[in-house]
Amino acid sequence: MKLATYKDGSRDGQLIVVSRDLRLACYATGIASRMQQVLDDWSFMAPQLQDVYTQLNAGRAKHVFAFDASQCMAPLPRSHQWLEAAAYPSHLALTQPQWPLSVTEPTMRQGAGDSLVGACDEVVLGSAAMGIDFGAGLAAVAADVPMGASAEQALYGIRLLMLSNTFSLRQLMPSAPGYAWGNVQSWPAVGLSPVAVTVDELGDAWRGGKVHLPLHTSWNGRKVGMCDAGEDMAFHFGQLIAHAAKTRMVHAGSMVGTGVVSNVGTTTGKASSRRSDWPKGYHSIAEKRAMELQQGDVASTGYLQFGDTVRVEMKNKDGFSIFGAIEQTIVSPLGEGSSAS
Amino acid sequence: MKLATYKDGSRDGQLIVVSRDLRLACYATGIASRMQQVLDDWSFMAPQLQDVYTQLNAGRAKHVFAFDASQCMAPLPRSHQWLEAAAYPSHLALTQPQWPLSVTEPTMRQGAGDSLVGACDEVVLGSAAMGIDFGAGLAAVAADVPMGASAEQALYGIRLLMLSNTFSLRQLMPSAPGYAWGNVQSWPAVGLSPVAVTVDELGDAWRGGKVHLPLHTSWNGRKVGMCDAGEDMAFHFGQLIAHAAKTRMVHAGSMVGTGVVSNVGTTTGKASSRRSDWPKGYHSIAEKRAMELQQGDVASTGYLQFGDTVRVEMKNKDGFSIFGAIEQTIVSPLGEGSSAS
Repeated sequence: MKLATYKDGSRDGQLIVVSRDLRLACYATGIASRMQQVLDDWSFMAPQLQDVYTQLNAGRAKHVFAFDASQCMAPLPRSHQWLEAAAYPSHLALTQPQWPLSVTEPTMRQGAGDSLVGACDEVVLGSAAMGIDFGAGLAAVAADVPMGASAEQALYGIRLLMLSNTFSLRQLMPSAPGYAWGNVQSWPAVGLSPVAVTVDELGDAWRGGKVHLPLHTSWNGRKVGMCDAGEDMAFHFGQLIAHAAKTRMVHAGSMVGTGVVSNVGTTTGKASSRRSDWPKGYHSIAEKRAMELQQGDVASTGYLQFGDTVRVEMKNKDGFSIFGAIEQTIVSPLGEGSSAS
Repeated sequence: MKLATYKDGSRDGQLIVVSRDLRLACYATGIASRMQQVLDDWSFMAPQLQDVYTQLNAGRAKHVFAFDASQCMAPLPRSHQWLEAAAYPSHLALTQPQWPLSVTEPTMRQGAGDSLVGACDEVVLGSAAMGIDFGAGLAAVAADVPMGASAEQALYGIRLLMLSNTFSLRQLMPSAPGYAWGNVQSWPAVGLSPVAVTVDELGDAWRGGKVHLPLHTSWNGRKVGMCDAGEDMAFHFGQLIAHAAKTRMVHAGSMVGTGVVSNVGTTTGKASSRRSDWPKGYHSIAEKRAMELQQGDVASTGYLQFGDTVRVEMKNKDGFSIFGAIEQTIVSPLGEGSSAS
């Protein structure tokens, strides 16, 4: 099923059920008003919401309205735990080559669960001089997962999947790996897709705890990334959640992001003239800049400017959008870059 | 005023108002049922709660019952953002001497807002071999604080103060400062005092954004720490919140902890036989072990065992407990160490 949260002026918004084709929606009247309520009591509420979803898809639901992604907050507008991994080693290898990488445990950090941004909302950031970057990936919303759960057990603790776009401030991010506690300021906000879906919506693209579909990222209308989200994911969602649950219970509504989706590059040419290439592009500017440095001498691509837009979307094999698109504009605190200004 | 959250079987519990002397309480019936509701709409609800508090202290409130700290969840049972600083440089200097320390910006990390533990609840942790440590400090609950707020502005964004006890797993914590993303597993839970209070409850002990009173920590009934919480706090609460708000809005209900309270040691003796001492003790075992290494050759104090209890409390000048006491027992997942077993 597909769920979203509509703006209603409150901090938690109003839960809605969205049709599979993202055209129609209805309120979950009589079942739940907030997404966190559903996550708190999933086994009781999810079957009722599934019934509404079935009716909605069959054209038999009541009080139906046209779904409008611009009215969406993040599917869960605030989360008691936002975790983000670096599940694609090729991203870290490009952008943080000096960091020690474990092959047995995912690299993971905790972030700002109070700073989630709706799919079409403007993202207010302080200064372009901070090196504003996007970072497109996927994120899971977890059930209660007991301490010490195995990766296989944790797979059953996935309630919903979404697309994510984590904004980072690259100039505030220490390049040296020596500042374990210094990153609070460099990850200001996360954008999330309008719709969150249960894993069955992915069909056979959901295999081994990974989503085997290309992620599409566009920057100011130009497609810059179409990496496969399943291909080079070194740790599947169950492994990511189990990592977080190793020493404590992970509570319902916690979110675990994959970090930037990235595919391994290809290398061609003889030893004397080897050239690396990344035919599927990039999902963060820092990667593009690292690619440029490997291919030449200069990282010529600059970071985001106010007014720039970033779009992230994923389509199924038939070409239909699964989660709806994240499409956000970067705006200064004074409104610079805003379409409203 | 003093507020707390009583257990009622739900994840968010039931908001109560507690009398100044911590003897009596009443439900906030008709005003709010959950603490987050109050934080979301403080300027509307706080005056109403203050009225109830005044009535309660005057013996004129209705439906009053005896306050029982063992019925408390964390005052805010789950938070969309738990931040923890290292506001006392003497703690980091002792326990992480190899870490780079900034004198202009606080060291701060993001933690698990879904893993807050009631003041008298057992703390379930996986294995004593992980090096279970306590870490007593204070924490503020923030209002909405706009991006870029100054430290002085951020001081007005403090809604409530509490005591905190952050559990850490020292053997899982990399001693090298090279694992910026590697700490998710080493900070499993935070205990919070039964009661959260507005800053006016501290009287003239609240000065310059700091609490100028000794913190009392006992381990298995033996007092081990009584450091002054104001004395060596290098960054006041306004500076801590402003640090978090530098690049994004901090949303209501976010919590900012000071980290382990610590006072600078004293040094006596001639140059040839100088000896450091810490007459006010310690608020984390890692500190005690570092002190032992400086005074001799062996860190002889071991970390917590199942069944160990840690008590954290702060009293005003008249000797009355301000926040109630955190008094928690460490228990294994199988119940080892539990008083119920």
